[in-house]
Amino acid sequence: MQQQHKVGLAPGSLVYVGEQSAGPVRMRVVDFDASQHQERVIEQVADCEEYLLRPTTSWIDVEGVHDSKIIGQLGTLLGLHPLTTEDLMNTRQRPKLDVHPDYIFCGLKIIYTQADKIIFEHVGMILKQGCVFTFRGRGAPRDVFDPVRHRARDERARLRSRSSDYLFYALLDAVVDNYFPVLEEAGERIAELETEVLETPHPQTLQKVLQLKRSMLKLRRAIWPLREVIHGMERSEATLIKDETGVFLRDVYDHAVQIVDTIEGQREMLSEMVNLYLSSVSNLMNDGMRMLAVIATIFMPLTLIAGVYGMNFEHMPELKWTWSYPVLWLVLISTALGLVFYFKRQRWI
Amino acid sequence: MQQQHKVGLAPGSLVYVGEQSAGPVRMRVVDFDASQHQERVIEQVADCEEYLLRPTTSWIDVEGVHDSKIIGQLGTLLGLHPLTTEDLMNTRQRPKLDVHPDYIFCGLKIIYTQADKIIFEHVGMILKQGCVFTFRGRGAPRDVFDPVRHRARDERARLRSRSSDYLFYALLDAVVDNYFPVLEEAGERIAELETEVLETPHPQTLQKVLQLKRSMLKLRRAIWPLREVIHGMERSEATLIKDETGVFLRDVYDHAVQIVDTIEGQREMLSEMVNLYLSSVSNLMNDGMRMLAVIATIFMPLTLIAGVYGMNFEHMPELKWTWSYPVLWLVLISTALGLVFYFKRQRWI
Amino acid sequence: MQQQHKVGLAPGSLVYVGEQSAGPVRMRVVDFDASQHQERVIEQVADCEEYLLRPTTSWIDVEGVHDSKIIGQLGTLLGLHPLTTEDLMNTRQRPKLDVHPDYIFCGLKIIYTQADKIIFEHVGMILKQGCVFTFRGRGAPRDVFDPVRHRARDERARLRSRSSDYLFYALLDAVVDNYFPVLEEAGERIAELETEVLETPHPQTLQKVLQLKRSMLKLRRAIWPLREVIHGMERSEATLIKDETGVFLRDVYDHAVQIVDTIEGQREMLSEMVNLYLSSVSNLMNDGMRMLAVIATIFMPLTLIAGVYGMNFEHMPELKWTWSYPVLWLVLISTALGLVFYFKRQRWI
Amino acid sequence: MQQQHKVGLAPGSLVYVGEQSAGPVRMRVVDFDASQHQERVIEQVADCEEYLLRPTTSWIDVEGVHDSKIIGQLGTLLGLHPLTTEDLMNTRQRPKLDVHPDYIFCGLKIIYTQADKIIFEHVGMILKQGCVFTFRGRGAPRDVFDPVRHRARDERARLRSRSSDYLFYALLDAVVDNYFPVLEEAGERIAELETEVLETPHPQTLQKVLQLKRSMLKLRRAIWPLREVIHGMERSEATLIKDETGVFLRDVYDHAVQIVDTIEGQREMLSEMVNLYLSSVSNLMNDGMRMLAVIATIFMPLTLIAGVYGMNFEHMPELKWTWSYPVLWLVLISTALGLVFYFKRQRWI
Amino acid sequence: MQQQHKVGLAPGSLVYVGEQSAGPVRMRVVDFDASQHQERVIEQVADCEEYLLRPTTSWIDVEGVHDSKIIGQLGTLLGLHPLTTEDLMNTRQRPKLDVHPDYIFCGLKIIYTQADKIIFEHVGMILKQGCVFTFRGRGAPRDVFDPVRHRARDERARLRSRSSDYLFYALLDAVVDNYFPVLEEAGERIAELETEVLETPHPQTLQKVLQLKRSMLKLRRAIWPLREVIHGMERSEATLIKDETGVFLRDVYDHAVQIVDTIEGQREMLSEMVNLYLSSVSNLMNDGMRMLAVIATIFMPLTLIAGVYGMNFEHMPELKWTWSYPVLWLVLISTALGLVFYFKRQRWI
Repeated sequence: MQQQHKVGLAPGSLVYVGEQSAGPVRMRVVDFDASQHQERVIEQVADCEEYLLRPTTSWIDVEGVHDSKIIGQLGTLLGLHPLTTEDLMNTRQRPKLDVHPDYIFCGLKIIYTQADKIIFEHVGMILKQGCVFTFRGRGAPRDVFDPVRHRARDERARLRSRSSDYLFYALLDAVVDNYFPVLEEAGERIAELETEVLETPHPQTLQKVLQLKRSMLKLRRAIWPLREVIHGMERSEATLIKDETGVFLRDVYDHAVQIVDTIEGQREMLSEMVNLYLSSVSNLMNDGMRMLAVIATIFMPLTLIAGVYGMNFEHMPELKWTWSYPVLWLVLISTALGLVFYFKRQRWI
Repeated sequence: MQQQHKVGLAPGSLVYVGEQSAGPVRMRVVDFDASQHQERVIEQVADCEEYLLRPTTSWIDVEGVHDSKIIGQLGTLLGLHPLTTEDLMNTRQRPKLDVHPDYIFCGLKIIYTQADKIIFEHVGMILKQGCVFTFRGRGAPRDVFDPVRHRARDERARLRSRSSDYLFYALLDAVVDNYFPVLEEAGERIAELETEVLETPHPQTLQKVLQLKRSMLKLRRAIWPLREVIHGMERSEATLIKDETGVFLRDVYDHAVQIVDTIEGQREMLSEMVNLYLSSVSNLMNDGMRMLAVIATIFMPLTLIAGVYGMNFEHMPELKWTWSYPVLWLVLISTALGLVFYFKRQRWI
Repeated sequence: MQQQHKVGLAPGSLVYVGEQSAGPVRMRVVDFDASQHQERVIEQVADCEEYLLRPTTSWIDVEGVHDSKIIGQLGTLLGLHPLTTEDLMNTRQRPKLDVHPDYIFCGLKIIYTQADKIIFEHVGMILKQGCVFTFRGRGAPRDVFDPVRHRARDERARLRSRSSDYLFYALLDAVVDNYFPVLEEAGERIAELETEVLETPHPQTLQKVLQLKRSMLKLRRAIWPLREVIHGMERSEATLIKDETGVFLRDVYDHAVQIVDTIEGQREMLSEMVNLYLSSVSNLMNDGMRMLAVIATIFMPLTLIAGVYGMNFEHMPELKWTWSYPVLWLVLISTALGLVFYFKRQRWI
Repeated sequence: MQQQHKVGLAPGSLVYVGEQSAGPVRMRVVDFDASQHQERVIEQVADCEEYLLRPTTSWIDVEGVHDSKIIGQLGTLLGLHPLTTEDLMNTRQRPKLDVHPDYIFCGLKIIYTQADKIIFEHVGMILKQGCVFTFRGRGAPRDVFDPVRHRARDERARLRSRSSDYLFYALLDAVVDNYFPVLEEAGERIAELETEVLETPHPQTLQKVLQLKRSMLKLRRAIWPLREVIHGMERSEATLIKDETGVFLRDVYDHAVQIVDTIEGQREMLSEMVNLYLSSVSNLMNDGMRMLAVIATIFMPLTLIAGVYGMNFEHMPELKWTWSYPVLWLVLISTALGLVFYFKRQRWI
Repeated sequence: MQQQHKVGLAPGSLVYVGEQSAGPVRMRVVDFDASQHQERVIEQVADCEEYLLRPTTSWIDVEGVHDSKIIGQLGTLLGLHPLTTEDLMNTRQRPKLDVHPDYIFCGLKIIYTQADKIIFEHVGMILKQGCVFTFRGRGAPRDVFDPVRHRARDERARLRSRSSDYLFYALLDAVVDNYFPVLEEAGERIAELETEVLETPHPQTLQKVLQLKRSMLKLRRAIWPLREVIHGMERSEATLIKDETGVFLRDVYDHAVQIVDTIEGQREMLSEMVNLYLSSVSNLMNDGMRMLAVIATIFMPLTLIAGVYGMNFEHMPELKWTWSYPVLWLVLISTALGLVFYFKRQRWI
């Protein structure tokens, strides 16, 4: 599933690993300090250079990581390790953190739901002195960074008066906050499935349960390493992250733990639903069995009686009696009613 | 499920996350030292200020955390970190501990049972030199802090002669002690369900079992981090907590461990009940199957015999014998009785 | 289940938590050194005082911890922390160890089996310089400390020449040694249940299996923390426990680990028995199903044949043939025998 | 399964443990530095010696480890510990790392798929100053080291300008990269099996699921220790591995973790498939049961009616009515259709 | 199960805990250095003394640990701690390591298979400067130490030129190597059981599976602590074990880990076999159900038709038609064949 286009290449080779996504690379710059704010779209890697030098805080959001030439130029411009540049283009990676002497690289998953499916988008984030770079694919249904872009426009926002590590945190927080609505939707889907399992159990229902469980597992795998990543950031001795940002990272960490907790709970609920399903099916079979037993118990004796009086013995006195036939009907009907009544009392029907 | 009103806001934004609860914020002050004791209800945040300065020990119990203005004012008054203020209003958080230079924040869950449902209430506690603040929602069915309020009135109580960290501990202990009756009720419910599973198994019974198991999981999630919280308090190097309070914290820690232990045991019992349920259903099906087999085994041969003597062959000597018919009845009845007797001995019926 | 009489009380409150046990408190003193030995029963707390001062090793065994007055007096006499005194009376606690500057407190469970039930008795042990106190309830079926009492009478016993920490160890060892026969009995009960599951599976059998499993879980919960307790004792820097006693503690530790190991194994065996049970029931159902299929397969064709020759068509040549009837019987019987023979070969019957 | 030819021999005995593989040992040398490159096949162990002394980087790839004489000579030449030489010939070992004063030994598994089976090949790697030795069996379906051989030919490759530890890493990376396509194939097989389980469940299907699960377990056992191996290499204080290679090792480590993650996910999917299988079988049984109940419910009443009018009572007025027979057909057919309609509405058929 | 003869005795009491084994104690001495070698059987404990003093390496293999007098004398001679002497006689212990100032004690399990059963033998090993003592029961089916005895006779063996710690390692290695064939046999038994489960599932089959699983669990319990034991030996700061022996211990450690790994894999396979069994049984039941449904579907309609023409209505025109009877047979047979054909296509039969 992963890295199929890469086996056999030298490490650090720039090959885009992911779904094909068309369109050019777009770089959106947000540049600010406490007093000023500027938004711009640039198309040349060279245009980035000035933001690296400015004393302001800059955020360059690169959309489209499939163009190895541009990513390679950016890697050279930023002085990235070849493996980091490779990681930027490999969208099938686990969340990871690499602390390099003069930059911090962190890879994360953004998660969207679209038509009952969970979509994973990889985002690479680089924190350097005075600037933050984010790298992601094109064509996401929503932009999770929009709220940060908004806040940067507001002069009174805390973001404006802090340095690039706080911006880095704010972007990270935006990614993590975005997990909550995905989990809520999953929770609603679980409730729907539970009703379906209890009322109309069908192998397809079970398959849906297992598919959702599998999605939760994927989700967990995408989010679980995040704890390590954030924890590593907090602990890292890099001077890039200031002490006062630590408390904010701890907060994101707490959210990540809470999310993993919720996922675990939902996975357990889905596991239990398999039991619920099996028991629902057993119950249906039980109903069939009871019905069969009831039908057989009622009709077999009656059929026997009818069979007996269909025998051709010469000496069967009842055959000649006048009231035999009506009495027989009486017997048949009252036996049937008696058994039905008995089964009703036993709660079999 | 969590934080749905918050995605996209700046961290530290004061937004109440929880069920809507009406009514004004109420602040109840208990102020005491070894020799004196005072209880008062205040409505203005400003009125709190004097208790921060007094040499006595003060406890301000804030009920209703939905009013962001008042919480914001209190945060400023107490010199809280913006994230702490945010945490005070976020009632959907996991238990957590934040040790700040001049205060300790701790978030906990109070648990009530109401009509077979388990209700979680979030309580935020802040320990500062000389005073303790507690923040919770309104409308709890009972006040778990009442016993502490009572003890504070008693001049001979140990509480009166100790400082604010002991008060903090006493409140924590009140919260933890309150978990025990909830677990007891859960234990009783488990016993009831076991009887139901064995005697009248029904998919609804299983669903009840799974719902209770889910509640236990939620309970566990609410209590599990508490161990870390208390442990962190005990270990923390903050001078706010004195060494002699450590032994008391260890005691609460032991209680928390015991509670988690009990919850684990109850969850395991509920897991086993799923097996018990499936086996009860299998058994019912088995009963149906046996009954069917018994009925078929008794009536099929008899029907065959009756069928044979209903044939129209011209040369069937038995048809003319005088005693054929009574003998046939004898055969039918004795075969039936013989089979019934056989099945009884085999314990099939 | 725990501590229900205590919610809302001040920590350190002396309230007996446990089953009501009548009768007065009895204190049995064993006092010895290498050269002399004395046993005595005392009734006044004040009488204990002399043993605290003597240079000999004393063991005061307090039976009946429900009398808060006496326990309170003893706490004062021994200089116990209020929480320790509380722990002495709370018989529903997990095993725990508290190392205080001048004494060591340790709470354990003694386990008995009585009529297929497992009974837990709480014992509190206090080690002070030169003396050991043990606190337990009244009415235990056996006295696990008897062997120690015996050994103390024997002049050549190692116990006589060592100090109070060795006595403490000897008592601990007596408690742990007593777990082995309980596990053996559980093992025998498991073997009995396995036979029952295979031969006469019934929901009650499963319920017995689950009850035993639950007992094992309780047992495990009672013994598991013991490892921590002994380990903590061994590691503790308290000078009360001498280095040469360490190797003995390690030995008890090994026994505790072995016991937990055995319990785990027995729990796993009980878990597997649930599978065995379900498979036994499935098998019974399978038998019923096969029997039904066999009966139906044999009798349905025969009944059809009889039905055919019971038809009233005018032109059925067989009806007039002389040998039709005997031939038909032949056909019926040989078909039946053929099917029986076929099913026998298929191992269906 | 392991080491059956070895029990009872002295440790360090040179005995080949693995499948018999014929053919002579082949040694392929690749020798290069930044400016030059040479490939050669040698047949004498003595010919290796010059490469140990040269300042260039040499890689000697030994294919065929079953010849204890040659391996013994190489061991002496390289100054290997007797246990290392033994490990080179033992192809049934877990992945391991041994750091010796002047060389590093590491044992790995190469994994191939061939006709739906997973094949494990053991490879031993030795890193010495200036040279790397790899030891493997003969007859692998593909050569996983080919890409490295290729890169060594390219003058601009990073490999050419780095020392032997980077070569060692490159070989390790080639082994790990090769795991990905194996996992992809396993993923496809899982999807196929899921369809089979849902559409045509059969015990053989389940057996296939369990066999694949077992393969995944073997795979996991082969890859899991790899994490420790790479981690150990990274941490080792051996000067053989330079600091700048550390970041590359971390990258392989991340891949190994990702692979283990994927295997875990696939194992979980296979576990769930067992449930899916059981539910599919239950469903088929349910279908059979329903069909039986429907057939019995329709035909038993009809047969009873026919039986009643086959009785031989003298006084059965209906027998003489002109329209009785057609009316009876009407009753039979409409009853049957009514029941069919009813069952259709109940979704039983 | 354990230690039943010991409850209530003083710790360090010499009581043999194990199966009764008759016969006298036999002590076999192997004494060697690089140049000479001697084997001897001694019967007096006193005869051992000279070997303790000699500069050569001696190995005294004590068979039969039930004689408390001899073990006691040896304990005194070797200067063992009372608990070590006790451990030598307690054959029901877990593997353990005790490092004493002037000797190392280690208890292990030797494992044999005999007639499908796994037999555990306890062996105690003591390493002193210049000599090794091994203590085991009598009557083992094979002597696992034979290969070591053999090697000691060979002048060129590494064993001869090394000191007592290498001998100790060689004996340990012999014990561990002996586990491999036991696991292989278990593996073959698992394969046999799998065939049985798939082809002739029966509750006894499942019981065999569970018994084997239980044996594997016992095996695991016997081997698991071994890792700790070897690890502890390697780490121990005792000067008795030289640094150059460390690498050999690491090798045994790796083997122990591999064995535990294999056991885990086999246990998992056995767990899966329970599922396979349940599915096999379900499948058999499914077959029965299908057969029943098929029989009923074929014969019920036919019986109804025969029943209809057995009615005694006066006006049934078909009864008088000449071809009615043959046509009816045609209808019966073609209906039956049509249904059979239909079920064949549905793969029901």
